Formats: sequence, C-alpha cells, structure tokens
Amino acid sequence: MKIRQITVTPVAFHDPALLNAVGVHEPYALRSIIQLHCDDGVVGLGESYGDDAFLALLGAAAEAITGLDVFHLGLIEQAVARVIGGGAFADSHGLTGGSSSSKTVLSVFSAFEVACLDAQGKSVGRPVADLLGGAVRDRVPFSAYLFYKWDGHPGAAPEDGDDWGAALDPDGIVRQARRMIDRYGFGAVKLKGGVFPPEQEIEAVLALRAAFPDLPLRLDPNAAWTVPTSLKVAEALDGVLEYLEDPTAGIEGMAEVARQAPMPLATNMCVVAPEHLAPGLRQRAIGVLLSDHHYWGGLRHSQQVSALCANFDVGLSMHSNSHLGISLAAMVQLAAATQHLTYACDTHWPWKREDEDVIVPGALSFVDGAVPVPQGPGLGVELDEDALARLHRLYLDCGLRQRDDTGYMQRLHPGYTPNTPGW
Amino acid sequence: MKIRQITVTPVAFHDPALLNAVGVHEPYALRSIIQLHCDDGVVGLGESYGDDAFLALLGAAAEAITGLDVFHLGLIEQAVARVIGGGAFADSHGLTGGSSSSKTVLSVFSAFEVACLDAQGKSVGRPVADLLGGAVRDRVPFSAYLFYKWDGHPGAAPEDGDDWGAALDPDGIVRQARRMIDRYGFGAVKLKGGVFPPEQEIEAVLALRAAFPDLPLRLDPNAAWTVPTSLKVAEALDGVLEYLEDPTAGIEGMAEVARQAPMPLATNMCVVAPEHLAPGLRQRAIGVLLSDHHYWGGLRHSQQVSALCANFDVGLSMHSNSHLGISLAAMVQLAAATQHLTYACDTHWPWKREDEDVIVPGALSFVDGAVPVPQGPGLGVELDEDALARLHRLYLDCGLRQRDDTGYMQRLHPGYTPNTPGW
Repeated sequence: MKIRQITVTPVAFHDPALLNAVGVHEPYALRSIIQLHCDDGVVGLGESYGDDAFLALLGAAAEAITGLDVFHLGLIEQAVARVIGGGAFADSHGLTGGSSSSKTVLSVFSAFEVACLDAQGKSVGRPVADLLGGAVRDRVPFSAYLFYKWDGHPGAAPEDGDDWGAALDPDGIVRQARRMIDRYGFGAVKLKGGVFPPEQEIEAVLALRAAFPDLPLRLDPNAAWTVPTSLKVAEALDGVLEYLEDPTAGIEGMAEVARQAPMPLATNMCVVAPEHLAPGLRQRAIGVLLSDHHYWGGLRHSQQVSALCANFDVGLSMHSNSHLGISLAAMVQLAAATQHLTYACDTHWPWKREDEDVIVPGALSFVDGAVPVPQGPGLGVELDEDALARLHRLYLDCGLRQRDDTGYMQRLHPGYTPNTPGW
Repeated sequence: MKIRQITVTPVAFHDPALLNAVGVHEPYALRSIIQLHCDDGVVGLGESYGDDAFLALLGAAAEAITGLDVFHLGLIEQAVARVIGGGAFADSHGLTGGSSSSKTVLSVFSAFEVACLDAQGKSVGRPVADLLGGAVRDRVPFSAYLFYKWDGHPGAAPEDGDDWGAALDPDGIVRQARRMIDRYGFGAVKLKGGVFPPEQEIEAVLALRAAFPDLPLRLDPNAAWTVPTSLKVAEALDGVLEYLEDPTAGIEGMAEVARQAPMPLATNMCVVAPEHLAPGLRQRAIGVLLSDHHYWGGLRHSQQVSALCANFDVGLSMHSNSHLGISLAAMVQLAAATQHLTYACDTHWPWKREDEDVIVPGALSFVDGAVPVPQGPGLGVELDEDALARLHRLYLDCGLRQRDDTGYMQRLHPGYTPNTPGW
C-alpha cells in the first residue's frame, strides 16, 4: 500500500493565556495536520508541531517518502533521516529539552509514522492499538493539567476569550482544579510551575493537597530551579507529590537532586532523545519518563522506550503539548497498547475549545478522567474537512508562524526574562 | 480473529555428535511445533523447545489463551503469565544461562507470539516483517557455526550418521569451516569452544584466521573459563576475534573481563532475561547481545531489546539452538525488520539434514551466507503435514524427552563432568 500523495496543512486554534517558566501561551496554538493518501484510497492521519521551520522539514520529508509502502516504517524512517540529514530543529521555548539531529529526525518521522499506522489500521480493519500488540486497557487515564493563567489575552476580543478565569494564587489554582475535575473526572493533578517563586508554588500544591486529599499530585517547574532549590521544594513536598517533574536542568543536575529527593523525579526535558537514555539511566537521574510520541519517533519507538523503562524500573507517563484530536487519538491508542504505563498521562485537552478541532466529534470523550479507547479502524477518528479548512483559515489569519511564549511575554512586559533557572 | 484451537506437536530430528562445554548433542534434537487454528480458517505456525517440562507449560498456556484474538498479544502474554505463574522452567544444559520465572513466561509466550504474528500476516496478506515495522534488509546474513564433533554417535546405524566427519583439532575445524563456507557462503565464522583446554581452542582459532584471513571470527566457550583464563585467551586472540562470547559466567565476571579484554564480549548466558538488562548494561559487562526470540518473548519484544541495545551502544547478534524451518523463518523475519542488528546471526541450520523439516521445502535458502527474506504472507513458510507426522513419529520412537548433553556424555564416558568453569 504505497503512499501516493501527502498533504500537510498548518492549522491554528485558540489557546488561553497559560503561564510557564519561559513566558505565556500565545492566543493561538499551531499544529500541522498530515493526510497521507495511499494508492488504494485509504487516507492516514497524523498531527504534529506547526512551527514554520518544522513545516519545512515535514514538507521535505513528505516528498522523500512518497511512493513508499505504509507498512515499511523502517525504510520510511531511513528516508526521513536521509533528507533531514544532520539538521536540528530547535523549538524556541525549550520546554521539551534541547534539540538534536536525532530528535529532529524522530520528530519528523513520528508525524508520518502515526499516519502510516492509521492507514495500516484502516486498510486491515483494525484499531492502531492492534498493530502495537493490542490494547491491554480499554480506557486511558489522564491527569488534570493545571496552569497559572491570566483571565484572558490582553486586548483580545471577548469571543476570543475563555471562561476559566484567572489563576494566579493557590485559591485560583484550587478553583481551576475543582472545575476541571468536576468536568472531566480526572484522578490525578499536575500543576505547571516555574512561574512564581517556589514558596508560592509549594503553597499552591499544599492547597491542592488540602482540597483533594486523595488525588496524586505533581509539580512541573520546567527546570526553573537550581539544585539546592529543587531539594528544598522536594523536602517541603515530601509525602505530597507522586513525582516532581524537571525541577532542574540537565541529567547531572537531576541526578544530584534524585539522590536526595524523597519522591521520584520525572522528566520530559533532560531525557528527550535516544542519546540521553544511557546516561540518564546510568546516572539514575530519573524515576519517571514522560514519553511523547511526537518526538520519540512515533508509536512503535515510544513502546520500545517504555519497554526500556520497564527494564530499568523507571516509571512511564506521557507528556503533552497543546494538541488536537488526532494527537489525542494517537496518544490513546499508544497508551492502550503499552503495558508499562505507570501514571495517568498529561493532556492539554481541557484548554482547547470543545468546538475547535479537525476531527468529527464523538470519537473521543473523557469518562471519569479517562478516554475510552476508540474501537474503529486506525486511530479511530475521522477528519472533518470543513473543520480543517476553518482551522487552516485561522492559521492564515492569526499571523503566528512559530510558538514563542517568551517573545509574546516580552511584547506584553518588556524586560521579561525566562525563569529558567530563576530560582 | 480468535484462536479456536491450538495444537502442540513434539518432533525430533537427527542431530550430529556436536561437542560443547557441558557434554555432547544427543542423536536427536527435540522441538515443539505450534499450530494455532483461528476462527476464520487461518493457521499460525510457531516452533520452540521440545523438552517434556516445556511441553507441559505450552499445553497449559495453550488452554489459557484459546479464545483470545491473535492481534491481542499483550493480553495473550498476560494470560500466559497468569497460568505459568511463578514457575521457572530450567533446561538441563544451562547453555542459555539461568532460569527464572520471567524467562519462562517469555519463552512460553514466544512460541505463541510467533504463531499469532504468522496468523496476523496470513490474515492481512503481509509478511511478518511488515508487522514489525517492515524489512530494512532483504537478506539476513548468518555465520558458519563450527563445532568440535565426533565422527558419529557411538553405536549408531550408518543411516543415522552424518557426512561431516570428525573435528577434534585445528585441522578438523578448518576442514569443517571450509566445507560449510563452500556450501553456504557464510561470511563470518563462530567456533563453539569450552570443549578442549583453552590453548587448543586458541590454536584452532588461529588456524581459522590463517585459512580465512578476511572472515570475522568468534569463539564461544559457554562460560567454561575463569576470569584470568578469559583474559589470557582474550589477549592471545587480540586482533583476531570480532567478539569473544561468554568466556566466563555471570555479569560480574563478564564485567571484569570486559574491562580489560581488547575485543567486545558477547553473551547469551549472562543477560538472558529482562531483569539482567539493567545490571548488565550498568556494569558494562557486554558489548554484544546475542538475542534469541525463543526466550526473549517473541519477535516484538526482541525488537524492543534491540532498540535498548542501540540506545546503550551495545551490538546485536542472534543466538541459535538446534531448530527447524519455522524458527529460521521467524529469525529471518525478525532480523529483516530489525534496524539495529550489527553482526551475522548464528544458526545450527547446516547441522540439520536437508530432508528433515516440517515445512514445505523451497521457502528458505542460503545465498552467499544469507537467507533471502521470504515475501509470502506471515512467516512465509508452509507446514508439510506429512513431514510433521514423520518427525513426530521420530519423536515417539527416539525415546528422548529432554535435552541432556551431560547425561548422554556420562552414559558414554562415565565420570565425565561439565567443563563449566573448567579452566
């Protein structure tokens, strides 16, 4: 089943003013939607980053793999590697760690790998999970992903706003958590930190603990802290956090914190490419890997990374960027078929407008904090061509061409510098 | 596509008097042939060990997984784990390291995993390699697997003999190598050692080097040596061996040798189950893993182990026991789809009679030392029911019920004790 033609469509969708260690989310998040047209009429779907530089890489790779068979993922990966060569795509926010040529190749390949698996599944009439060894769970639990946030984007029109309100202190965070949990039923809670001084974020976590005594809690300052600060926070939150995510930068720093911290450390920043696995595991820098198929080379490679974590007794959770339904479907199919998945996964899903997506509604839903695994062929979701056109129009009109949380913050607050490592 | 019924048929085939560190191959090798009958008429094939105790485990597992879907490999593995429980199957020769409950579960699961993948491939009209990410090579190179051997089994009838002749000194080994290479075209050579004192085996390797100046050479004494002896041999064969396989026992001993040996150490004895990977890699005990899908949990898990090796910059080759065509087909499909395979694989194939197998002849052949990857659906081989019946009859008649190289040697030479660690 050969790839006849590939369409890559950049899209944008509304994003609230979510704060993090390097700035604030811009009013629109960018994504790319991949349609992989096969010679028997099957169309495979993929979704990935929408930055300009990444779109250029997708375009080059799409040309290189046209004509290949969707079952020949190894050859497709080789073709992507040849055309991407030694280049390294660097996102401008650094929230998923450094860039490297291997990570770039795996990121570009991933977008097509998912689309190939969707095409394979549609072709043989099986959900993607069945191509990954079959589902071992029928629902995939996610966590409530809390953000410090502004009420809205400064100067935005009311119709471009959101109804979550501001969250800039412990009360605001607890209010946000309560609403998110009421709506989605999440059974675990993650707070994106690195925004305020650590003492304030400790307070917010303790307020969450008081409000939700039974829910596992996580805190992720995106490496905004030094090693001593990380250890102070870890001590203050002993018995409170199920894991502490990326308190500090780099494998060495994380290993130093890990030696003394009472809870496991998680990362999606210091171990983000194959070359980090051996040093990260040899130095015992992490207790939990937040995998992300978008940069770990797709679903099959993510399963291999999960198996590796199992062998090293390292837990596995899942990282998320702002995303649409194709990515969520891929995350769910992967998680369903991954035996070693030891924590509820992250998702930005609640921050997306319910009516903004590129897929036909109904295939994906949250029940008691988990997404039931779609049973249809492939990813189990269907492209809505009109919706795709609308979000592509939004992309064209919004003017954003790369994610730049820092630049946006600096336009609003001249003199702002990222908080990494701020404390 | 549900499993309706599973047939496990023990078979035997002639095996020459091949010598190793624990004794000598008995006149017949035992295997099990798995037929997995699915509810739409597809039959998936598998092959594994044929020892009595293992057949009992296969039988229990077969019952437990009947009714499951062949695409639900994760659930099948869980079902096997439940029924096999904490038991550990211990082969009596120890040539693939120690036994453990995890290795036992993975060994039993593997036989069915391969059969499920064969059924999947037949069902969707794709070679198994395509279910593993697709072939990245169209031929799989193997090595010439040399053995010290007796001319024949004492007291055997002429029709039960072989025409390889004896090989008990360097000349005999070189003669055997020449014949095997002439016939199969192998481009790498492995000598099974641990039979004679190390000095004699060093001589044999040097004789091979003189006779085949350009071929990579390997020596495998099955952990028959102490650490100091291993280091002496390693020094004597510096620049001669591409790798030294299992010179000594255990991860600690191997790590000690590895720190000083000039060539990489390979193993299929000290790292043979998931729980050995972290300590083996953390202690840098090995430079090459000889994987074997028969005990690493099938083809998908073997690919995951390969990916792990790639991440740790550890080479990958493939281990072999005496086997028939279904196992060779599985090895070839796996190797074809495994990017990180850095050495020619082992196979006992040349020691098998050409007319003794359970598959229809023609699908597998050696061309210039490599097996072209079968292009048919599934494993690409077809069961010959008459041949299966013949080899089952041989099993019934031969009287052997478990491999016992040591016991056989002791019956022939009372007072014999295994050579591990003999020197």
